[in-house]
Amino acid sequence: MEPKNLLFIFLTAVLILLAVSNLTSPPSHKADPLDRAGRRTSKNRIHSETPFRHRKPANPTRLHSSDVPRHPLDPLTVTELNRVREIIRKDGVLGNRAHALHSVVLEEPDKQVVLAWENGDPLPPRKAAVVARAGGASYLLTVDLGSGEVNRREEKTLSGYPTMTMEDMTSVTWAPLASADFNRTVVERGVDLGDLACLPISSGWFGKTEEKRRLIKVQCYTMKDTANFYMRPIEGLTVLVDMDTKQVVQITDKGKNIPIPAAANTDYRFTAQNSHQRLVNPISIEQPKGPSFTVEDGHTVKWANWEFHLKPDPRAGVVISRATVLDPETGLKRNVMYKGLASELFVPYMDPTDAWYFKTYMDAGEYGFGLQAMPLDPLNDCPRNAYYMDGVFAAADGTPYVRSDMVCVFESYAGDIGWRHSESPITGLEIREVRPKVTLVVRMAASVANYDYIVDWEFQTDGLIRIKVGLSGILMVKGTPYSNLDQLNQQENLYGTLLSENVVGVIHDHYITFHLDMDVDGSDNSFVKVNLQREYTKPGESPRMSYLKAVRNVAKTEKDAQIKLKLYEPSEFHVINPRKKTRVGNPVGYKVVPAGTAASLLDPDDPPQKRGAFTNNQIWVTPYNKTEQWAGGLFTYQSKGDDTLEVWSNRDREIENKDIVVWYTLGFHHIPCQEDFPIMPTVSSSFDLKPVNFFERNPILRIPPNVEDELPICKADASA
Amino acid sequence: MEPKNLLFIFLTAVLILLAVSNLTSPPSHKADPLDRAGRRTSKNRIHSETPFRHRKPANPTRLHSSDVPRHPLDPLTVTELNRVREIIRKDGVLGNRAHALHSVVLEEPDKQVVLAWENGDPLPPRKAAVVARAGGASYLLTVDLGSGEVNRREEKTLSGYPTMTMEDMTSVTWAPLASADFNRTVVERGVDLGDLACLPISSGWFGKTEEKRRLIKVQCYTMKDTANFYMRPIEGLTVLVDMDTKQVVQITDKGKNIPIPAAANTDYRFTAQNSHQRLVNPISIEQPKGPSFTVEDGHTVKWANWEFHLKPDPRAGVVISRATVLDPETGLKRNVMYKGLASELFVPYMDPTDAWYFKTYMDAGEYGFGLQAMPLDPLNDCPRNAYYMDGVFAAADGTPYVRSDMVCVFESYAGDIGWRHSESPITGLEIREVRPKVTLVVRMAASVANYDYIVDWEFQTDGLIRIKVGLSGILMVKGTPYSNLDQLNQQENLYGTLLSENVVGVIHDHYITFHLDMDVDGSDNSFVKVNLQREYTKPGESPRMSYLKAVRNVAKTEKDAQIKLKLYEPSEFHVINPRKKTRVGNPVGYKVVPAGTAASLLDPDDPPQKRGAFTNNQIWVTPYNKTEQWAGGLFTYQSKGDDTLEVWSNRDREIENKDIVVWYTLGFHHIPCQEDFPIMPTVSSSFDLKPVNFFERNPILRIPPNVEDELPICKADASA
Repeated sequence: MEPKNLLFIFLTAVLILLAVSNLTSPPSHKADPLDRAGRRTSKNRIHSETPFRHRKPANPTRLHSSDVPRHPLDPLTVTELNRVREIIRKDGVLGNRAHALHSVVLEEPDKQVVLAWENGDPLPPRKAAVVARAGGASYLLTVDLGSGEVNRREEKTLSGYPTMTMEDMTSVTWAPLASADFNRTVVERGVDLGDLACLPISSGWFGKTEEKRRLIKVQCYTMKDTANFYMRPIEGLTVLVDMDTKQVVQITDKGKNIPIPAAANTDYRFTAQNSHQRLVNPISIEQPKGPSFTVEDGHTVKWANWEFHLKPDPRAGVVISRATVLDPETGLKRNVMYKGLASELFVPYMDPTDAWYFKTYMDAGEYGFGLQAMPLDPLNDCPRNAYYMDGVFAAADGTPYVRSDMVCVFESYAGDIGWRHSESPITGLEIREVRPKVTLVVRMAASVANYDYIVDWEFQTDGLIRIKVGLSGILMVKGTPYSNLDQLNQQENLYGTLLSENVVGVIHDHYITFHLDMDVDGSDNSFVKVNLQREYTKPGESPRMSYLKAVRNVAKTEKDAQIKLKLYEPSEFHVINPRKKTRVGNPVGYKVVPAGTAASLLDPDDPPQKRGAFTNNQIWVTPYNKTEQWAGGLFTYQSKGDDTLEVWSNRDREIENKDIVVWYTLGFHHIPCQEDFPIMPTVSSSFDLKPVNFFERNPILRIPPNVEDELPICKADASA
Repeated sequence: MEPKNLLFIFLTAVLILLAVSNLTSPPSHKADPLDRAGRRTSKNRIHSETPFRHRKPANPTRLHSSDVPRHPLDPLTVTELNRVREIIRKDGVLGNRAHALHSVVLEEPDKQVVLAWENGDPLPPRKAAVVARAGGASYLLTVDLGSGEVNRREEKTLSGYPTMTMEDMTSVTWAPLASADFNRTVVERGVDLGDLACLPISSGWFGKTEEKRRLIKVQCYTMKDTANFYMRPIEGLTVLVDMDTKQVVQITDKGKNIPIPAAANTDYRFTAQNSHQRLVNPISIEQPKGPSFTVEDGHTVKWANWEFHLKPDPRAGVVISRATVLDPETGLKRNVMYKGLASELFVPYMDPTDAWYFKTYMDAGEYGFGLQAMPLDPLNDCPRNAYYMDGVFAAADGTPYVRSDMVCVFESYAGDIGWRHSESPITGLEIREVRPKVTLVVRMAASVANYDYIVDWEFQTDGLIRIKVGLSGILMVKGTPYSNLDQLNQQENLYGTLLSENVVGVIHDHYITFHLDMDVDGSDNSFVKVNLQREYTKPGESPRMSYLKAVRNVAKTEKDAQIKLKLYEPSEFHVINPRKKTRVGNPVGYKVVPAGTAASLLDPDDPPQKRGAFTNNQIWVTPYNKTEQWAGGLFTYQSKGDDTLEVWSNRDREIENKDIVVWYTLGFHHIPCQEDFPIMPTVSSSFDLKPVNFFERNPILRIPPNVEDELPICKADASA
């Protein structure tokens, strides 16, 4: 679910004047200009000030114009992005044609260069990787920021198109207004054009229609009397638009008999409630001596026994690199993961009808998961003492802009227990040893139109990394003539749940596939399935008939590591370093601990599932290949699924004792319920990367318990 | 895993004198006397004072001698327990024979009586339910505290015996010392008898041997040079003891060639570490205006929109009753769950050899999960501002005793998000609405000898109840001749992981089965499987081939509700009230959201699995029956599995629109790893009870965000 884009249409000057109080200025890629204060004081925002004082941005003064890179993996700076734009323009590599830059990011140095680099060393040459469109073709450019040299490659073999630019997404929502037919039907349905809000919905690929030109579908809502226009769909009206020409290709105008659901009870904003409900007293995570982490040189996070590089990314959201953990036995940093990121999302809706069948979103490859990550709300998205990191991205014309407070880093303590043991009354020993559990969280929240994804990378002192995805935000709903289920013919399929009068929450899935370049004590690793198998005892061997035995199977090639999880054939999944053993001889490793494992059940030959084929297994392992980073393919938009993780994995390359990448998919089936209306309480799921014989023993044996004397002394704020 | 009992043996006066500095007094059921100060200042404890100041009990002065019941479900008070003991003694109902009371708890009034009761009403008659042993028979007594009348029933039909008394567990560990053979082999293995620590290990049922008398197996360890004697097993030495006569029935003396693992690196106590490792600054959950919950009349917890009755229980640990949630639309309290508790645990080890095959623990029915729940450690087991509740239980002779600080209640805030939505850059609307997520946790931690189980009942303001089990504590390990895997013959099966020199962590499972008497808006409910099924479109119907459809199936009888979870045949599991619908016509309900679903893979006819047959499905639904509370049977000890949840469910009674009970099993496969040595970082799993069309809409729409002004002002403690 993640359609997109809203626009307030002022078709004519008259309508503009009538409607102006509801309008914002047209969306622009400059919505987040370098001058943050400008954005913050936007005059046009629909949301008036909250009644709360001091609702301020986390980092009110960071301009980024003087940022310089300090680490080989640091993202391109404002200065560098400006230089890329200039080089491309001057170089003429894209000719004199109009062109758009769909992605401008750091071309990361080769892995061995990064691994060899140490703090204080000169940086390897800085390069930019650019995806551009010009004259109807897609190009991959490598721009050397030092020499100014540009390497250009036209991409002709892959189906599909690059991630949309923000300009693509915002501009197409205006296109339907050029059609008198469109305007007429909107007005006929009782919607003022000035109340219209439209979303750009990726069209997917279903055959010839979606080939050879960039298409998008636009669907609209009315925002009359609510900020939550998503609950007021103009059902059945779909406009197919050519994204390059902005021409309306086709209008499908069905569902005229379906009323637009009422605005009542849909607005979720605090200021829109006629009463408030304070359920709990103030509560806060407090750290009287400050947090225990530092962020050095802008991107290197050091906390407890962990160190890693963190950067925002327009496609993945956040990228964690070079994660190392300190070994308490040796005092040495040990490699765990070279790179981890959310590679792709796949969100198929379960309604095959005309206005819905194509809703099978790929939120990273189509929309840019990082592009949709909005500023976090201090004290609510992240607790006190959080550190906020800005994203610096490039607009379609190459102009850098700042997405402020896009990522936060904070320490979390929920009252949980790191480890404990009491002696029981059986033993009579007076032992009670308990250690609190404190973690470090890296968080972003992407608002892909209606839906909000909260992505947490949580680091534990015991060496575990938990990757958690929370789903909140607003459902993608469907209009229906029904206001009560008793009106429904038994045979009729709503494709979802009746949530309110005339509103159906359509069933859908969410899959988030993570790219995890594990480097456990070095790059060359093996993937081991540790199967728990039922064994039978021989007659007379034991009073027991059966027990479970752990049987280790090292995956030789990629197909050995295409894993469909089975509850009744359980396994552990270890990434080990076969050349490094513990004192007693176990190979050192990390295991992938699955959870949140809804599996895609669409037919594998269904076009959306071919494109989302990376969800056909929960786990895959591939040999490291710099170009294989995006599970849905580099060019996901309208792709046929010819460049997915499945395609790569089916080459069945060797993966034993190689530099390998693990892919894990978190899955959710979502049958909406009334509690999801008009905004959804967060649902979360997570999986873990957990040390397994990586340490010689419990690495947090020697941490101290909490004691009263070291905890803060607090009082209620004076204003209370 | 959960063997039990430790004893320091002073076989002879000489040995006593030699060893005395290591000894505690023999375990006694009076380890927790009414005078708490007495226990706290025990002179004999092995654990000297921590270096920390102010390590004080949470409730230093609560004596409970003047407690009176205020609610029909309140546990028996000290006064009432004393009266029960007296009535039984005077009444002569058990004759003049020696008898032991294995359980003395409130006989809960009938459900309809409790449901009809309102605060201020007189209490229904108070009764005690007593399980007693006398003259080799088991009796169920009902003692009327008002009239003094006793109703007696001898239990003859069920196999098995009542939960062991603490006195059973502690006394049998002394029994082996009466055997010269035992003492000789211990000394021959180089262990001073004064260093011996022995555990009572339930023998299970494997056939005739385990019938007609109460048996237990005792295995021993050396506690020389470590408090963590569990890591120093005297492998292969098993003593079969008659629990009633304390006679040694059989000694199995194998594994003499297996060295006892060294003490080095096994002690986990803070004071035993030669260096400490402070990884993080102080961090605390702070509530400047105090917590938002109250505990009224000792047992009624009121927090935010929740209200429930909470009591400690010697078998289940904690019992949550009469959980109701406030409907924000109507302001009325609505019933959700009549009673929830951990009904049984099943912990089979995966080693069929002589000294291990019988380790298939039932921690609630055999040992008493609540009996093993030790005082919580303030600031570490539970954060600041936690409320601590004591357990009041009866010893074998009926004497009441207090288990202090056994349960805690606290509010938790981890920095998580209750719900959120930002408008995306596509829409250009300036909306950013985020609400923090605060929960209420009820926690206990049972130390069933080596293992520690942390059980959390977590209540969320959105109506969700999360039931979470954390595993920590110490592994049950096996001695082995090997100090490195390279010494091992490829064919040889260790039945686990080599964790340290001569120490194998044996593979095992944990199952915790919860009894959930759901009463969703009333007692009569139905169980609905909402299956997500793949549907194919007809030719020409849609560009899509397939989609998922939700198909509702109401379970008519118990067998319809025996659920084995299937990743590729997913379902939601709703408990609905078929006579109550939302405004738009959905039946109101709660759903069971599975997770942590390891399935037992032992052969269903294997004796341990017959006894643990309640783990054959992840979900079961039974019609309410007051006597069906313990999934492994009322008399679990040495039972044949003739009284399990499976037996009841196979009666296949009607469950549609009835008062039903849902059973859910959390499962863990545990292949130990070196990080679990010498004490395990907590591993957790949970499942949820979640409103599904229970509320008309999101019930926390109107809660406010956090604002700076309302958060506390804190400073580091003066001592810092």
